[in-house]
Amino acid sequence: MKIGDSAFRTIWCDGDSRVVNVIDQTVLPHRFAIKTLHSATDAALAIRDMTVRGAPLIGAAGAYGLALAMNQDPSDAHLQSAFDQLLVARPTAVNLRWALERMRGHLGPIAPDRRRNAAYAEAAAIADEDVAVCSALGQHGAELIAAAWRRTGRSQPVNVLTHCNAGWLATVDWGTALAPVYKAHRAGVPVHVWVDETRPRNQGASLTAYELGSEGVPHTVVVDNVGGHLMQHGMVDLCIVGTDRTTRTGDVCNKVGTYLKALAAHDNGVPFYVALPASTIDWRMRDGVKEIPIEEREATEVTHMSGETAEGDIATIRVTPKNSPALNYGFDVTPARLVTGLITERGVCAASEAGLLSLFPGEERAA
Amino acid sequence: MKIGDSAFRTIWCDGDSRVVNVIDQTVLPHRFAIKTLHSATDAALAIRDMTVRGAPLIGAAGAYGLALAMNQDPSDAHLQSAFDQLLVARPTAVNLRWALERMRGHLGPIAPDRRRNAAYAEAAAIADEDVAVCSALGQHGAELIAAAWRRTGRSQPVNVLTHCNAGWLATVDWGTALAPVYKAHRAGVPVHVWVDETRPRNQGASLTAYELGSEGVPHTVVVDNVGGHLMQHGMVDLCIVGTDRTTRTGDVCNKVGTYLKALAAHDNGVPFYVALPASTIDWRMRDGVKEIPIEEREATEVTHMSGETAEGDIATIRVTPKNSPALNYGFDVTPARLVTGLITERGVCAASEAGLLSLFPGEERAA
Repeated sequence: MKIGDSAFRTIWCDGDSRVVNVIDQTVLPHRFAIKTLHSATDAALAIRDMTVRGAPLIGAAGAYGLALAMNQDPSDAHLQSAFDQLLVARPTAVNLRWALERMRGHLGPIAPDRRRNAAYAEAAAIADEDVAVCSALGQHGAELIAAAWRRTGRSQPVNVLTHCNAGWLATVDWGTALAPVYKAHRAGVPVHVWVDETRPRNQGASLTAYELGSEGVPHTVVVDNVGGHLMQHGMVDLCIVGTDRTTRTGDVCNKVGTYLKALAAHDNGVPFYVALPASTIDWRMRDGVKEIPIEEREATEVTHMSGETAEGDIATIRVTPKNSPALNYGFDVTPARLVTGLITERGVCAASEAGLLSLFPGEERAA
Repeated sequence: MKIGDSAFRTIWCDGDSRVVNVIDQTVLPHRFAIKTLHSATDAALAIRDMTVRGAPLIGAAGAYGLALAMNQDPSDAHLQSAFDQLLVARPTAVNLRWALERMRGHLGPIAPDRRRNAAYAEAAAIADEDVAVCSALGQHGAELIAAAWRRTGRSQPVNVLTHCNAGWLATVDWGTALAPVYKAHRAGVPVHVWVDETRPRNQGASLTAYELGSEGVPHTVVVDNVGGHLMQHGMVDLCIVGTDRTTRTGDVCNKVGTYLKALAAHDNGVPFYVALPASTIDWRMRDGVKEIPIEEREATEVTHMSGETAEGDIATIRVTPKNSPALNYGFDVTPARLVTGLITERGVCAASEAGLLSLFPGEERAA
């Protein structure tokens, strides 16, 4: 998608030097910077410190991390050690495991001295497939936005509320929750997005607002507390969020606070959609609240905030008293009963086992 | 309550000079500073810029603002113009109107040349009555906390979740939502408080954490997004919040985001209590969502944040992209159906017209 006059992906390989470039998402929206990854360790660090974030992009970064590992040392032992190192970089994202297992499964049968090229080709395939998947689910979701526009008599923009960043910066391109918005916007449907700032890391206020602004999509930033009030007063036509992990029963694990918005949507009759590539589905899980491990992150993400001063410097401030402890859960689980529908690359289905199996019948025996 | 080794109220009159002192709540928790008010204009400004905030304290500050006005010019015309000036300083807080009307009603029949002393005495009475009211409702609420402790077999601390700051800094002393916590803590009931940071102004992260820390009450700061997850996992025994305005039917208007926590409490069977002095009840209103005007505040409260740098300076940073607009509603309305009970100075009642009238039978004809 566009930043200024240039089209970017969030991750790309420099063909000659075999290094991997990523957009450094920790300094957006104040700076646009590219970071170069030279090793699996670089990739694991980039995943852990959220230089790259978003379930699909984490998967692609993990795949490229294994390619970098094979570039350094294509042995079986190194393949496994790099796999292990990358897998623990973010415990919640199921895409990471999926991408790493696909890479290992592909590379394992190949002789070590031929793994290098095969690894880069497979990582590139994973990235390209992600773009195709996001484009397809964006098309399906755009039809929901267009339908909402028709319901309002085409008299005013459709108001979409989203939480966190499930835009193109969370994927390789297009995004998940925002792909429908971009597709609808490009198709001429007037759409306005309520952007939850998404504490503690402010991915909404920084990344979602940044990418919507770059694409020219009208949007307004609100604090996470406001969505309920907006929905009570008819100011939201539909919610679309992403998910880091989806159970076979349709429970979704997304950025913490998603559950609260789903409750408000349910209480006010506002459709609540979750956009996801199938790689996000964990077919082994049935009860999201009980089974999905929730990542506990550094308390400093709560107690401190970063931003730009009036002088243009990036500064970090503490917002809590010095001696007050803080706790920081990164995700929560929204039960399927609160989800109106799942937007996938194969179409929209009910948030249920039957719904998912109607689109992905091959997974029936995966439980 | 205590700050360091000294006991403070949030507002007090300097008897000799007739000026009024307040704790400047805009620089907490990083600085402790006292601001001196010399005129009704000073008081109106202190209310508007949230040097003082919290419904009961706003009422007391309004009353003292009229005393300052009478000190300058005790004429009928000045009484009315100061009344008008103070009333518009914060549109949502019903206590402000209540305190100003009480002052005007008391002073109107008194000859102008005798209004000065009468005004200070009446403002002091309003402050003292607020302390007594908060102490009484704290006692009633502490019994709910003690009962929760008994239900858990006294095996572990009671976990109370609160939103925003309805502690003693929001009143003259004791607080509303936190008065039960302080009373329970002093009575030896082990209590731990989950403190919602309460974006955009962070009154939880700054004020609630500060006053709990000063009193030695165990607490943990969390972002507003986390409460739903905590409740899903049995980590909250009860919620207690304050309210700026309560309808005769038990709807409560409190800091934006309260409604989302009430939804989560309801969804997880967690008791959700609202603590309020009777002055907060607007007996003329029946439908909070439809009737209570919601204050829209400056967008900069969303786009910018203030805190302390590592060097100890207070700095303000921008967290959103330069060109992204923001919208800032200060409050939302929680329907009575989501409220387990109302904690008042006369006891605990159901959040309904019948419940409120059982404690305040004199208001039956006020509708």
